[in-house]
Amino acid sequence: MTTTHKYAHQLAQAIRESEDFKQLKDAMEQIEKEDTSQKMLDDFRQMQMDLQLKQMQGQTITQQEQEQAQRLFETITLNPTISRLLQAEQRLGTVMEDINKIVMGPLAEIYGEPEQ
Amino acid sequence: MTTTHKYAHQLAQAIRESEDFKQLKDAMEQIEKEDTSQKMLDDFRQMQMDLQLKQMQGQTITQQEQEQAQRLFETITLNPTISRLLQAEQRLGTVMEDINKIVMGPLAEIYGEPEQ
Repeated sequence: MTTTHKYAHQLAQAIRESEDFKQLKDAMEQIEKEDTSQKMLDDFRQMQMDLQLKQMQGQTITQQEQEQAQRLFETITLNPTISRLLQAEQRLGTVMEDINKIVMGPLAEIYGEPEQ
Repeated sequence: MTTTHKYAHQLAQAIRESEDFKQLKDAMEQIEKEDTSQKMLDDFRQMQMDLQLKQMQGQTITQQEQEQAQRLFETITLNPTISRLLQAEQRLGTVMEDINKIVMGPLAEIYGEPEQ
């Protein structure tokens, strides 16, 4: 195993042992036990993906679609399990974004700008 | 600094010190000294990006465009500096892909599939 691979595994292990990761894992396990919450969340994710796909294909998101997405978001976050999950996801997401920026740093130094 | 941040910096440093990274950096510095090579490479990258954008927008890449891209690729790789750069890029790219898979591993364990 090269030094980079060894450090990558060490970092992955540190992520697994972090509080943010454990909380997200707990929240995911909790939601899997609640069929209704899981279904609500799945529907929300599906709508998000549909809108993202539209955007990537250069199509316009209508105001109606935006409002509908916003309303659905407000509704599902009234559910405490979903709310906890989304918050945990956001926290770990911020950490992963930071890590990604640090790890991709060497490439940014070569290419003169962030890779993402 | 958290443990994850510390390990991320350690990993970034290991990447910087790796042979693959140093070779890519050398190749980039060399190409910057060669105006013609740099221009050829820039044109090739631009064409690649144009084709990728077309694809992302759901447009079809014509056979003519594909052949043109292939011909341009064959032409530029006759240039030894460009060839060296592209090979170094490919090697480091493979390393970075591996690293990314390892570091994103914890998320894959939660979500049940790779994030990318």
